[in-house]
Amino acid sequence: MKQLILSLMALASFNAVAQNPTVPSVTENVVEDFKSASTNQENKQYPMVNSQRMVRAQITAPQATFVGLDIAGKIYAMTKDENGVWTGTSAPQDEGFHYYQLNIDGASVPDPGSKYYYGASRWGSGIDVPAADEDFYTVKNVPQGSVNEVYYWSSVTESMRHGYIYLPAEYYANPDKKFPVLYLQHGMGENETGWSAQGKTGIIMDNLIAEGKSVPFIIFMDNGLNARRPGEQPMGFGGPRPGGPRPEGAPRGQRPGGPQGAPQGQRPRMSGADFARMARRMGGAFEEVLIKDIIPMVENNYRVIADSEHRAMAGLSMGGMQTHGITLNNPTTFAYVGIFSGGTIGADELTDVPEFKKTNKVLFMSAGGKETGMAEGENSVNKAAEDMKAIGINAHSYISPETAHEWQTWRRSLYQFAQLLFK
Amino acid sequence: MKQLILSLMALASFNAVAQNPTVPSVTENVVEDFKSASTNQENKQYPMVNSQRMVRAQITAPQATFVGLDIAGKIYAMTKDENGVWTGTSAPQDEGFHYYQLNIDGASVPDPGSKYYYGASRWGSGIDVPAADEDFYTVKNVPQGSVNEVYYWSSVTESMRHGYIYLPAEYYANPDKKFPVLYLQHGMGENETGWSAQGKTGIIMDNLIAEGKSVPFIIFMDNGLNARRPGEQPMGFGGPRPGGPRPEGAPRGQRPGGPQGAPQGQRPRMSGADFARMARRMGGAFEEVLIKDIIPMVENNYRVIADSEHRAMAGLSMGGMQTHGITLNNPTTFAYVGIFSGGTIGADELTDVPEFKKTNKVLFMSAGGKETGMAEGENSVNKAAEDMKAIGINAHSYISPETAHEWQTWRRSLYQFAQLLFK
Repeated sequence: MKQLILSLMALASFNAVAQNPTVPSVTENVVEDFKSASTNQENKQYPMVNSQRMVRAQITAPQATFVGLDIAGKIYAMTKDENGVWTGTSAPQDEGFHYYQLNIDGASVPDPGSKYYYGASRWGSGIDVPAADEDFYTVKNVPQGSVNEVYYWSSVTESMRHGYIYLPAEYYANPDKKFPVLYLQHGMGENETGWSAQGKTGIIMDNLIAEGKSVPFIIFMDNGLNARRPGEQPMGFGGPRPGGPRPEGAPRGQRPGGPQGAPQGQRPRMSGADFARMARRMGGAFEEVLIKDIIPMVENNYRVIADSEHRAMAGLSMGGMQTHGITLNNPTTFAYVGIFSGGTIGADELTDVPEFKKTNKVLFMSAGGKETGMAEGENSVNKAAEDMKAIGINAHSYISPETAHEWQTWRRSLYQFAQLLFK
Repeated sequence: MKQLILSLMALASFNAVAQNPTVPSVTENVVEDFKSASTNQENKQYPMVNSQRMVRAQITAPQATFVGLDIAGKIYAMTKDENGVWTGTSAPQDEGFHYYQLNIDGASVPDPGSKYYYGASRWGSGIDVPAADEDFYTVKNVPQGSVNEVYYWSSVTESMRHGYIYLPAEYYANPDKKFPVLYLQHGMGENETGWSAQGKTGIIMDNLIAEGKSVPFIIFMDNGLNARRPGEQPMGFGGPRPGGPRPEGAPRGQRPGGPQGAPQGQRPRMSGADFARMARRMGGAFEEVLIKDIIPMVENNYRVIADSEHRAMAGLSMGGMQTHGITLNNPTTFAYVGIFSGGTIGADELTDVPEFKKTNKVLFMSAGGKETGMAEGENSVNKAAEDMKAIGINAHSYISPETAHEWQTWRRSLYQFAQLLFK
């Protein structure tokens, strides 16, 4: 669980844990077969990736004294040629999508060559490193659904909110049919754009449905971090403390049960449920918005089968922890539960096992193979799924090969989870 | 028309005409009532705008020797404080949306404080300067349509293409109703995201429909610059010459009828139709994609009234010139024509006036008040509309007060044009 909170903090911001160290650009044993990244802006040559999955960035900055490529926790010092063009190459990266940025004389800025994505609490550069299995998230000439940008009124926040809804191709083609719905949430430092842009949700679903591997369903993607009641302050790291204001007179750091309060060594062990509570607090009023505003809005405005057996919730990292807490808190609302790199639901958390078995159709937990705390051993998703299966729950686990707390793990998790839904 | 081509070039890139000059940051007579811009990233304080419509940018760049705010053709030199934080203020800007960027020691980069928009041939910073009339493009609690991201197969380019479709709220609420369609195009250096992001198309339409000022209709927004047949090279400035390859043996610069070929002073005067042809060539195979792929796809996949009286085309700048050419070329396809800051259709271009009067329901031409060539005098949209009305055509013109060749002109043009459609 310590690993999970460090992962959360790393996701939240480039410099949440510590300033990334500067290292020399890689120059030895580099295979010179670089190609422009698929995530580049139209007609931009750089950044590039080679067959070793090294990333090479380039930018013109004639008067700069330092330019660095800031990716995966390191800043690679780039070198300048006689025309003021800086170039630098990183060590090999994992397959899939990574946030990165450039550092120009101490300023952290987006790379003008890449498209921009919201993560690490900013709109900034991202790069997709080709993956052996990228076919499943490649646009193909199959029946196309659409990812739709919608605004809706929230009675909880008393404001217009913004989300995205995926409608499968059949939603348009078959106007009499009603569909199940998955509510799908992003991670810390991300927003409602993450699942469709970095996550490639619409493309993955169109392909899965065309191959007959998934039934067609609707997906709603909201912002799980910015739901605030009128007058409420932002939650999350640096926001108001979980558990409400510090009691009058109480010294800083002595919070009842919070993870950050007690002195080192005396902290009570946090359970999965504690993390789930924390994630729900970070989201502010998100649980209430989801239950009171989003689900009714989706079910009123779209052709939806409006019962728990046709309703799923899933999320990645913090979104998985929110899923953990919200689905346990609302056991008759969601029959399908997916937690991607967000820890596990333990059998000891179920207060009424027979009831859970009656309401839950699938419990899916996944992690990246490099997230060792969640991928291996006593706290792994595999162990949790085994324990759940032992008491008769339809639990599934999945480990994404050779990936970390990043989007390739979550694209693959969605691909796996979607095939289990509403069948 | 010279002004139009200069406007096109300025839109295409920050440095299409010349490197922007560096000027001192504005420090005198500045009213200190700056507020964070509505286009900022969540939780980012800068850039800010004050009541004089000055823009103030700020960035941390401790080791930099120069940082500038590059907006509206000038680079304002910012100044550094003891913490390495650079701040600078521009002269007053026009109301509405502007592309801008930062310059850090010679590198042109996006401002990490703003959201990013596609224009000037790059994803980069944009800022919305509050406008007296911004109510019409403000999100309100009215019935909400949606802007949908779609992929479709193009038989012309033999590839999957990417566009956006606006569906009004009633499309979802009234599943038996069919709707008219407007095909709406962006300008030079922009793409299919422009009309919904900078243009606020979905918001403008939801508000207009809710007020009963517009009938509900569908809008399709495509990329008018990247349509290329298999093997074809990119078109546009720097691409292949208009009019096909240079004849074998012919010296450079002696093109038949092209605007750039003949020596200064001997160039044939370009007509509106010449510009329209040029714009269509810049778009490559766009006309063919629109007629053969997009319109049939929209009419097959959505509930559409599929006849010319329920089909409109409009565009801004280059997109207006494409509209000019494509609608004259396909007179029985579109009954409604809108040209925003894209010149005029002259009565002398109509080869068959009675036929045009029979097929065209509305001809709308607009410009920004600061686009003097199009807003005033012999070549103005007002004059062109008068001439057209004189021969019995239902022509309309509109001048956007105090705006230039920018998005505020086009938001207002859409607001005006939409109210004339399909009635």
